[in-house]
Amino acid sequence: MTGKTRVAILGASGYTGAELVRLIARHPAMEIAVLTADRKAGQSMADVFPHLAILDLPPLVAIDDVDWDAVDAVFCALPHATTQKVIAGLPERLRVVDLSADFRLDDPAVYEKWYGLPHTETELQKQAVYGLPEFYRDKVKDARLVANTGCYVATALIPLIAILQAGLADPDWIIIDAKSGVSGAGRSAKEANLFAEISEGFHAYAVAAHRHTGEIDQELSKAAGRPVMASFTPHLLPQNRGILATTYLKGEADAIHAHLEKRFADEAFVHVLPYGKTPATRHVRGSNHCMIGVVADRQPGRTIVVSVLDNLVKGASGQAIQNMNLMLGLPETTGLEQLPLFP
Amino acid sequence: MTGKTRVAILGASGYTGAELVRLIARHPAMEIAVLTADRKAGQSMADVFPHLAILDLPPLVAIDDVDWDAVDAVFCALPHATTQKVIAGLPERLRVVDLSADFRLDDPAVYEKWYGLPHTETELQKQAVYGLPEFYRDKVKDARLVANTGCYVATALIPLIAILQAGLADPDWIIIDAKSGVSGAGRSAKEANLFAEISEGFHAYAVAAHRHTGEIDQELSKAAGRPVMASFTPHLLPQNRGILATTYLKGEADAIHAHLEKRFADEAFVHVLPYGKTPATRHVRGSNHCMIGVVADRQPGRTIVVSVLDNLVKGASGQAIQNMNLMLGLPETTGLEQLPLFP
Amino acid sequence: MTGKTRVAILGASGYTGAELVRLIARHPAMEIAVLTADRKAGQSMADVFPHLAILDLPPLVAIDDVDWDAVDAVFCALPHATTQKVIAGLPERLRVVDLSADFRLDDPAVYEKWYGLPHTETELQKQAVYGLPEFYRDKVKDARLVANTGCYVATALIPLIAILQAGLADPDWIIIDAKSGVSGAGRSAKEANLFAEISEGFHAYAVAAHRHTGEIDQELSKAAGRPVMASFTPHLLPQNRGILATTYLKGEADAIHAHLEKRFADEAFVHVLPYGKTPATRHVRGSNHCMIGVVADRQPGRTIVVSVLDNLVKGASGQAIQNMNLMLGLPETTGLEQLPLFP
Amino acid sequence: MTGKTRVAILGASGYTGAELVRLIARHPAMEIAVLTADRKAGQSMADVFPHLAILDLPPLVAIDDVDWDAVDAVFCALPHATTQKVIAGLPERLRVVDLSADFRLDDPAVYEKWYGLPHTETELQKQAVYGLPEFYRDKVKDARLVANTGCYVATALIPLIAILQAGLADPDWIIIDAKSGVSGAGRSAKEANLFAEISEGFHAYAVAAHRHTGEIDQELSKAAGRPVMASFTPHLLPQNRGILATTYLKGEADAIHAHLEKRFADEAFVHVLPYGKTPATRHVRGSNHCMIGVVADRQPGRTIVVSVLDNLVKGASGQAIQNMNLMLGLPETTGLEQLPLFP
Repeated sequence: MTGKTRVAILGASGYTGAELVRLIARHPAMEIAVLTADRKAGQSMADVFPHLAILDLPPLVAIDDVDWDAVDAVFCALPHATTQKVIAGLPERLRVVDLSADFRLDDPAVYEKWYGLPHTETELQKQAVYGLPEFYRDKVKDARLVANTGCYVATALIPLIAILQAGLADPDWIIIDAKSGVSGAGRSAKEANLFAEISEGFHAYAVAAHRHTGEIDQELSKAAGRPVMASFTPHLLPQNRGILATTYLKGEADAIHAHLEKRFADEAFVHVLPYGKTPATRHVRGSNHCMIGVVADRQPGRTIVVSVLDNLVKGASGQAIQNMNLMLGLPETTGLEQLPLFP
Repeated sequence: MTGKTRVAILGASGYTGAELVRLIARHPAMEIAVLTADRKAGQSMADVFPHLAILDLPPLVAIDDVDWDAVDAVFCALPHATTQKVIAGLPERLRVVDLSADFRLDDPAVYEKWYGLPHTETELQKQAVYGLPEFYRDKVKDARLVANTGCYVATALIPLIAILQAGLADPDWIIIDAKSGVSGAGRSAKEANLFAEISEGFHAYAVAAHRHTGEIDQELSKAAGRPVMASFTPHLLPQNRGILATTYLKGEADAIHAHLEKRFADEAFVHVLPYGKTPATRHVRGSNHCMIGVVADRQPGRTIVVSVLDNLVKGASGQAIQNMNLMLGLPETTGLEQLPLFP
Repeated sequence: MTGKTRVAILGASGYTGAELVRLIARHPAMEIAVLTADRKAGQSMADVFPHLAILDLPPLVAIDDVDWDAVDAVFCALPHATTQKVIAGLPERLRVVDLSADFRLDDPAVYEKWYGLPHTETELQKQAVYGLPEFYRDKVKDARLVANTGCYVATALIPLIAILQAGLADPDWIIIDAKSGVSGAGRSAKEANLFAEISEGFHAYAVAAHRHTGEIDQELSKAAGRPVMASFTPHLLPQNRGILATTYLKGEADAIHAHLEKRFADEAFVHVLPYGKTPATRHVRGSNHCMIGVVADRQPGRTIVVSVLDNLVKGASGQAIQNMNLMLGLPETTGLEQLPLFP
Repeated sequence: MTGKTRVAILGASGYTGAELVRLIARHPAMEIAVLTADRKAGQSMADVFPHLAILDLPPLVAIDDVDWDAVDAVFCALPHATTQKVIAGLPERLRVVDLSADFRLDDPAVYEKWYGLPHTETELQKQAVYGLPEFYRDKVKDARLVANTGCYVATALIPLIAILQAGLADPDWIIIDAKSGVSGAGRSAKEANLFAEISEGFHAYAVAAHRHTGEIDQELSKAAGRPVMASFTPHLLPQNRGILATTYLKGEADAIHAHLEKRFADEAFVHVLPYGKTPATRHVRGSNHCMIGVVADRQPGRTIVVSVLDNLVKGASGQAIQNMNLMLGLPETTGLEQLPLFP
């Protein structure tokens, strides 16, 4: 017996599943006890992700075949909708970080609006804690079920919640122009995500209609203390990893910058660049870091905030481990010290 | 004697120069008589651009060595500042399309502000016509000197000028979030533009400070009939070609869409997509087309306009040929019928 | 009535289909009369390929719904196996260029070996002419059915057939190390071809087992006048277009270079670079050109030949039009003058 | 005092320098005491490599300003030629791993042939140990100066030395077709390495003339026990990291595979895939691993070996740390446990 927390990763054949394996395999206080992938049950991770062939990992099994007695904690990286039932069926004693959207929205009606399905586990929903540790750290520590933030949402909202909480920008004047790498779309085989369809090109999608919008509204409204409806346009970048959000605000840039610097001074994973400098996605690739830049617009009274993170790490699997570290009473940065890979 | 217009391309060793060669070599009414490249004088285009090795082209010469008697018209693809003196020294009878920024700004003080140098040819400046044919067609026809639009500017302003001229959006509420492929930065050897620095990453640059801003203000102000100061943020995409501008406006989307459809119905190179659809840069690659999409934002009364073009074609060399066609009394589309290359 | 040849493109929703449309839409002696795509019947090309939205094209229909009276010639861009039956069912008077592998192999047993299915149209097979115009021009002119070469095969064999026919290399010592862009894999939605699976990486595949090998053996054996079995390893490049073959031979480089220069001096689409220089795929992108370089190896008596083409043009759709031009008695280069697009 | 080995990284502003920082910053037994970059002296690493801004690092200084008393060991990541004099001037007590080519070649005449300059430190050269730990482990342990292998060389030779030492392939019949990511070309600003020159394209370079050839000959000759001259063709991939070598041999594939499996069974960083499977560069990205595949060619008696590594890690900085670990008596894998980053 190692004394390590034995974790199950549900949905290990997707990109966030593989990223959980990459990070947890080197985590000093967790060990991978169970990997599930219903459609690929029976295969090895080496078959599904050859870059992980060098690890000694349990085989992929179906969720129904998991021996839960061998598990202390669960990362759930399944598609939304499927997730609700799976988590509802887990033994009560297991602490869970869910990477799907299923438990992020407080209001089941809002969930139904954006995801097109009624929420079937509304009681469980009430117990879920929103998993943005920089703002919900204390609640996460005590949670049984944490709903990990969406990747777009984390990118835009780490600076924005802080700004709105401090009353430094007009809540009615928020425009988030976001750009994401392709891995955010997952590993399912779709024509639209083929290399030849994506490379050497760029486009907006789901304009004014992206599912993460509900989550953005919810958290911005909490931060502002009143209903907020932001403009949010996602775009697809011809690159694997990274999200950059360019956010236009009505507010004073120097005050915003000064506040963010102070607000995040003690955060291990949030870095505010010197005033006037802006970050690049490549500077956080593979790491759990979020970088933020603040610039004054030419228009007096307008501010441009640029924030970046790696959608598979701080936008998904790294954030999930950060949350689980909190839930297990571990230092928040445990196993997340990887530096960015550049070039 | 062919009866074709004999053109000189000044600055043939850069990307816009090569693109002029690609297009003019197949133009039925122009022939390439002179190619200059001061630092590469004496070399062949096959040395400098092996993809053009299959053409029979004149050698690269220094500008001082050009026999102007062999030339009927000039495309000037030189860096800004250098350009002014060169064009001032050309024989009066030559018609000129200038691809640099040197003659785009009506006001020399604005030029000096953005480019950091006093304008030395202010008389010549007064004769220059701004080369956006969809709006200045009649003036271009009679011009001796046309100042081809900047690539970012063309992308954002083809829809925006039309919208402001029709009074369909609030001129004080314009946010242009633009993204460009790397070829827009030219061919000079800079660390920042190395493959390893650009690929698999994305960043904003010159936030609230890009030189094209002066040109944007100038043209939007003309369109609105009063001073306009837009927010403009450029970003660099990990791809060769293509610019996409996402523009946020206060105005009604359906009215804006209906107007753009009508306004551009007879334009050969401007295509307004069905309401609610948005274009991708890859769908105009290598062609002289500009595609525009209009979507209503969730915020009532706000509209999102997405426009794309190929920065080296409609954003530079194709536009230059379109202007020259007008100046020579040719059908505007002559030699510009290339279809987009996808994938 | 235009007097143009009315062509049908069968399988217009794939990449080679779209490329046929791009090229034929600007072809002065052909017009697109029919476009088929069984699974996407009823859609428009603008739906399926937005970069072609600017053209006025017939709708996609199912093959069974084609009015063959409106058609003079057929380009067949369907998957192998399916193709045989479709072509067998066409009216006799229609001339056909087939881009699939179904009629490339003279020997049905060889077809069955590599494609895993018996050939069902062996009589038709006997009439088929192998569509590499640089070597089979006269036969192509009189053919009713031309089997367009495979993309890997064209790349490697344009120089190799010429070399073996001249007896300038040892037929038992041929190693072809080939690298292809991803568009060669087609547009079907496969996990292996997702952007995130391909970008920033490179691998060999089907090592010593690729289906094009049968075609390579067949043509090299004809050229050498005795059975030849080459080593052939394909690899997948993180780029859309372009194949490069590095071929290792036992033979004298200067003699090989001199012969290739002479042999291809009058070929419009084959360019032999100066001795010692080698080409890049980017220098033929979007064009129907093949470029060849020859270098002496350090090992006395060994030669390295590097050849490139665009797999969708000279490796597929451009070659098909070149063949059809021959079949229709048109100049071979008609409609194929597009210059390479770089960068 | 930490008890950690205090290391200096000479040439910290290049890619291998940055990669040394990335790896050593998390190394449990080393600490970064000195960073040099002559042309960028006075700047911070955050200026030069923003992805490292989150670390607390010493400033960049000129080599002449280093206080060597604060240093226990040196990683030298300077250009060849410059390197010789620098290392010759270091205090004798410092152990050195040199990442340049300056001390890799035993014979100064061979150095002069490939690098075009006479070797000026021939006495020092005699002390240098060739830094391929899988074959020179014992010598490395005792060395004062280790000449880290070239990136192409490590990729091809890890399998090849083992094969030739076992007499399993004909030394006169070795063809290495190698493909490298662009970061191998370093960070200097050259037109040829601009994004727009590299992306969406592929080419061979330095065909039969690459500088690593001397090193390949040297090590293969030692392995075979007689002079070996391999064919070696490098190519440039449109990706940042990764080298793949496809090697054609005369020898029996099953025997070769069986031997490699056995030979590398205890090596932490060398992985032989199941017979018939081949690796991809993306599966070792960011890690110190080398993966090897073996396939029988169709030609009886010929074998194809495919090997991959990350040129900046196992091909440079990771290998350097592996060597230094040996020199310091540390477990060879210390600080090199990072898993590959995919996608």
